[in-house]
Parts: sequence; C-alpha cells; structure tokens
Amino acid sequence: MIDFPHLADIVEPSPSRILMLVADGLGGLPHPETGKSELETACIPNLDWLAQRSACGLTVPVDAGVTPGSGPGHLGLFGYDPVKYTIGRGVLEAIGIGLDVRDGDVAARGNFCTVDAQGLITDRRAGRISTERCVDLSKRLSAIKLAGVETVVAPVREHRFVLMLRGVGLSPDVSETDPQKTGVAPLDPRAESAKGNKTAKLVAEWVTQARGLLADAAPANMVTLRGFSHLPQLPQVGDAYRLKPAAIAAYPMYRGLARLVGMKVIPTGMTFGEEMDTLTQHWREHDFFYLHYKPADSAGEDGDFPRKVKMLEALDAAIPRLLDMKPDVFIVAGDHSTPAVLKGHSWHPVPFLLHSQWTGGLGVAGFNERACRQGALGEFPASRVMLQALAHAGKLVKYGA
Amino acid sequence: MIDFPHLADIVEPSPSRILMLVADGLGGLPHPETGKSELETACIPNLDWLAQRSACGLTVPVDAGVTPGSGPGHLGLFGYDPVKYTIGRGVLEAIGIGLDVRDGDVAARGNFCTVDAQGLITDRRAGRISTERCVDLSKRLSAIKLAGVETVVAPVREHRFVLMLRGVGLSPDVSETDPQKTGVAPLDPRAESAKGNKTAKLVAEWVTQARGLLADAAPANMVTLRGFSHLPQLPQVGDAYRLKPAAIAAYPMYRGLARLVGMKVIPTGMTFGEEMDTLTQHWREHDFFYLHYKPADSAGEDGDFPRKVKMLEALDAAIPRLLDMKPDVFIVAGDHSTPAVLKGHSWHPVPFLLHSQWTGGLGVAGFNERACRQGALGEFPASRVMLQALAHAGKLVKYGA
Repeated sequence: MIDFPHLADIVEPSPSRILMLVADGLGGLPHPETGKSELETACIPNLDWLAQRSACGLTVPVDAGVTPGSGPGHLGLFGYDPVKYTIGRGVLEAIGIGLDVRDGDVAARGNFCTVDAQGLITDRRAGRISTERCVDLSKRLSAIKLAGVETVVAPVREHRFVLMLRGVGLSPDVSETDPQKTGVAPLDPRAESAKGNKTAKLVAEWVTQARGLLADAAPANMVTLRGFSHLPQLPQVGDAYRLKPAAIAAYPMYRGLARLVGMKVIPTGMTFGEEMDTLTQHWREHDFFYLHYKPADSAGEDGDFPRKVKMLEALDAAIPRLLDMKPDVFIVAGDHSTPAVLKGHSWHPVPFLLHSQWTGGLGVAGFNERACRQGALGEFPASRVMLQALAHAGKLVKYGA
Repeated sequence: MIDFPHLADIVEPSPSRILMLVADGLGGLPHPETGKSELETACIPNLDWLAQRSACGLTVPVDAGVTPGSGPGHLGLFGYDPVKYTIGRGVLEAIGIGLDVRDGDVAARGNFCTVDAQGLITDRRAGRISTERCVDLSKRLSAIKLAGVETVVAPVREHRFVLMLRGVGLSPDVSETDPQKTGVAPLDPRAESAKGNKTAKLVAEWVTQARGLLADAAPANMVTLRGFSHLPQLPQVGDAYRLKPAAIAAYPMYRGLARLVGMKVIPTGMTFGEEMDTLTQHWREHDFFYLHYKPADSAGEDGDFPRKVKMLEALDAAIPRLLDMKPDVFIVAGDHSTPAVLKGHSWHPVPFLLHSQWTGGLGVAGFNERACRQGALGEFPASRVMLQALAHAGKLVKYGA
C-alpha cells in the first residue's frame, strides 16, 4: 500500500465521496499528420471545462519507459507501488477471464503449441488458432481428472488458455514448461521448492494426459504452461484508507483487480451507460467508487486513431452525468497510455485531473497530454493518486504538530 | 540528515554565507472570485524581481497530499527526511511553548477533559475552556509533587497543557491515557517496555493527584495525557554541513526546532524588524542563517485572504534590506502552504527561490505558485533544499573524480 509509513496516523474517515473514473489507455501520442494526440484531436468540452478547474498532471504508471499491463496500471492508481506489489501471471490471466480464483488455488497461463513427430516445438503459438478452436480444445482438456484436485481449463483467446488447480496443499513453486524457443521439447514441470513437489507431480500428470488428448489436434497438438501463481495477499483498500470502496466495471479483468484490493464489486452491464446506472443506484452506499471505461483503450490497441478520438468524445459526453452526482473529489485518470500510433499499451505518462472544491483557479487550458504537464500536480507516480484523493476529500489530518 | 550517503565526502567549508528566509505558510490557493492566489494577488515587486534572477521551484514538504505540521515542515527544509526523522508530540508541544526540554526529560501533551460522576469522559476537551482557565488550572496542577522527580505543568491554550518530568531513569515508553472517545474512563498509563515501569508508575501517581485537585473544576475535572516523548537525537546541522548555523525566530516553536537541529538560537524581538536587526548585528558570526517570518501563516490560519496578501507585501518590503546584507545564497522558502481558503496548513507544494551569483537568467516571471512550477528546479522534495543551498554557496566539491 501507499509507501507513506505514517498513513495510519493521518487517515480519518469522513462523509465525503471520491469518484475515480479510470479511462483505460487514456493517454496517446500525436498523429503524424496533425501533430495532435487523440485527446487534442477530440472535441471534449466537458473534460476541458473540468481541466480548467482541476489540479491536473501526468501520472507515471510504473517508471520511466516502463509499459504497464492492466494489473500494475491499476495497482498504481489504487496506491500500491506496482514494483513492490505484483500479481502472478497465471492469476492475472484467470482474473482477466472472470474465473473465481480463491486462496490456495494455483493458476497458470497455458499456450497451445505445435510439436513435430519427435515432440520438438515447431510453433510456440500453434499458428494462433482461432478462439473458437481454443474454446473446443479447452473443453476437451477439461476432461482430465487428477486425484484429489479439481481442475479448470478455460479458454482466453487464440492459442491462450488458463489452467487452474484447486485442492489442499497446492503450491505455485513449479517451473514453467515453455522453453521460449522452438526446436526443443517442452520442459518438464519441476518443483522449485519442497512445497512444490506435490503440485509439480500433478501438473506433470496433467501435461501427459493433455498430450494424449491433443494427439490429433495439430497444429494445437501440445501445450506449455507458465506463470504458476497463487492469489497475492494485498493490503486492502478499505482498511488502509478507512474507506468503504466499490468498483463498477464491465470487464472481468477490472472486476477481478478490484476484488483483489478489497473493493466491493457491484454487478453491472456491459455498456458505460449501464455502469453509470449502477453508480447512480449505489451512490449512497459507498464513499469511494472506481468506475472503469474501456472503449478508448480497445480502439488504441486496434491502432484506430479516429475511433479512439470518438470513444474519448463519448466519454466526454458522459461527464455531466457524473458531475451531477456531486462527488466531493472527482478524478479522471488512466491506468496507462494506449497511443493508436503504437497499437498497444505504452510507457508514456498519462493525463490526470482531480476536481474538488479546492481546485478552482488551479486549472490548465484543456485535458490532454501537453496541457496536463503544466498542471498543479506536474508529473508524479500513479501510486500517489490516492494520497491526493484523500487529501482533497478532507480525509487526511496534519502530519506532525 | 540529507539522504545523500556521500555528503561528508563532498561538503567543504567556505567563507560564503547562506541566508534562508522561511516564510511560514507561504504557499496558497486561488481566491474563488479572482482565480489568483495570495502571492499572485499581492504586490511584491522585490520578490518578483528576485524570482526573475533565481532558481525557482516548488518544494514538497513531506509527500503528495500530506499536510505537514511545523515540525516536519521545518525538518525538511533543514535537510531531514521528515518521514524518517520525527519529533514526539509531547516534546514538540513543549518546544512550541518555549519549555527548556533537556536530554532525559519526558514530555507529554495533556488535555483537560470532563468526566461524569462515574468517571466516564463526557467531553474530551472540557468544553474548550478559556486559555485563562487553562493557565489557572495548570498552576494548580504544578503543586503536585512526585518522589525524586521534578514536574512542570505548563498551559498551551484552551484545554491543552504540557506535562514534563525531569529526573533520572525516565522513559517515554508509557501508553497514552486518552481513550480517543467519550463514554469510557481515561485509560491507566501503562509501561510499554520494562524501561517504562518507573515512569508509568510516576505518571499514574500524578494522574491520581490531578484527579483530586480538579474534583471541583468541572468542566475541566480530569486530564488525559499522550505523546510521551524524549528529545529526539537528530544529527546536527553544523556537523553534517560543516556550517556555523544560527537561527533568528520570534516564536518559541521555531527557536525550539532550530535548537533541536543544533543551530545557535540568537535572542531577538517579536517583530520581523527586530529579527532583521538581530541578523545585521550577528551577520559576521555565522555562515548560515535561518530567519523565520510568521505573519503570513497566521493570516492564512485565520482564513483572512486580504491580511495574508498584506503580510506577504510586508515581507516583500523587507527584501531589499536582506539583499543589502549580500548573502552569497539567499533562499525564500516556506515550511508548508497555508491557503486562506483552507484556513489551515495544507498539502500543496510551496513556492521556492534560491538566488545566487549563478542564477541570473534562470528565473521565472514572478514569485508565486504558478510561475515557480516553471522554474529551474521544478517540483522537488524540501529535504533537497540544503543540497541546493550548499552547492550554490560553493560548499560542495565534485563527487567522484
């Protein structure tokens, strides 16, 4: 949790409400033809109006030059140093598809791959089989039974799936079987500690059975596994900040992350409009809301500059409804940048605004990468966002006399 | 001390002089009607002129969102990480009213409180009795005698007082007696380590006698105690920086803090004019001066925007006299912000300027929150100020060959 060792001494509950809107992949880069980023191109009068009355800045999700995944990107915004607090890859993948990972479960990321007659890998991604095929083959692998352990095999997309084991005495101390190159056989799963012996044996047995079941399924005739992990033990947001936090997010990954940090995850629909309906209905029940907006990121991932612009404009149109809720602190942040020109997440700092009754006159010209750098908060680590939120919500008392 | 592990290797005395003017509560926030902060509203031609020829920036006293008290705010400016170096609350309160706390003494913050016939607390602050009443009752409690130990009871204001014990073998390892809620009795002081046994017994005896003496003094018919503490052992400014440092401050709190870090505290009068007279008289005797200016903070605490503006203008008028002393490095800093709109200390970064023969051409448009952000130093931790001061004074040699 927040790396301020005296936090418990200064945090104090109050009736004020914080609304943190996370626009996934918010930040961008200039279009080569116009020299303007997605936010600078979009017509976003409400966000611009807000930025003129907000403490603005740029958040650094992890570190200079480091591109975060969704896990570290969100952990930072929730106040966790994403270098110190990590989530295993298997667990993150499982959460991302909505699996109900519980304490003691072990999850791993799986790849379908192609092996030749000698069992040597010829394609680590099985020619990127279709997601439909992945669903079929995952179902086939679900037939594998292991003594005393429940197994779940769930498709992710293309060649990727999740293997989850549930039972007593399981450990994530198992080495990965992906050799990270072709021309060699998948590695055997080995225990990385005495605790891992039982699990390594079970995984070896599972892989043997999988090899048999997939014999006729070329190019997806074998599997590799990596990122064996337990649920991480994270300090809980409610305890650390003395908040009653809730999360509203359409996608499983974000619901899962919110659950990991101890937020109450409120069921909602798949559109942002439905998310806002949910917010309205539950507004009186919590003093902190994390509200997730996905479409801008998806457009950025697709490299679709005009669609990202459009999705930012759609977000902008929703702002008045959020302001009508009268949050004491309203934050618009991003977990990372997803510049359309890069077609993926990037390392660039992310525009940020915090609006409260104390931020009048602190604003900048508009809400975008260039203007936010001139804001009252400058460039700062995302893991400091929660301190700013608590301070502006009047939930922090003086440190020292 | 400064978190630069090789400081001792590079610091070198020189005849140059550093003058650090600390304008208490310097930073502010925009007035809702004008959109301009106190500094932006004030007519401060001398500070503006200086800012145009200085390395400017914004200091972060403790951390994002963290509002410092005077202790952490000043420790930072003197080069101490205020998260690492802390001063006990009892000692800080004692220092704040000018008590002569010595090594081995134990000081605690006291509250007069109200208890009912069953001894349960009904008001933790005794209805905030007048300071006059506090003075009377503190005098009454001064009559308490403890075997082998000298006791001092000194009024602070309203319901607050300081209890100080002086004797051999005293320890601050005593639990606080304030239960932090009403409807329960004050807690008994308990030893928090074997070392604390003797002191806990003495404090219990003192509380018993206090209860008797206050029986007829409702609403102030009982006391609670907390923040038992010794003088902290802080590295000394003179040793660490190889300086001969002096402090000139009208208020006891700041003189006490300066003494804690090893500055020579020069007696002075209650006005800033008298402080400057003192500075002039002793200018040749030291190579570092900490000069404290209080009135802007007091106005901010009162929520009096126009008066804070006026007090900043009064400070500005004094600048030429300070420049006439020809300090080699002249710093204008604040220990924290005290925006009039917040009526108290705040977490906002604080305008800062450092003027020396090497800062011509580095300046910004004027001396205020907005302009300083664009300065040569940007936003930086207050605990880095001393390194900048020493460097610009030519007191740091090259690190590494």
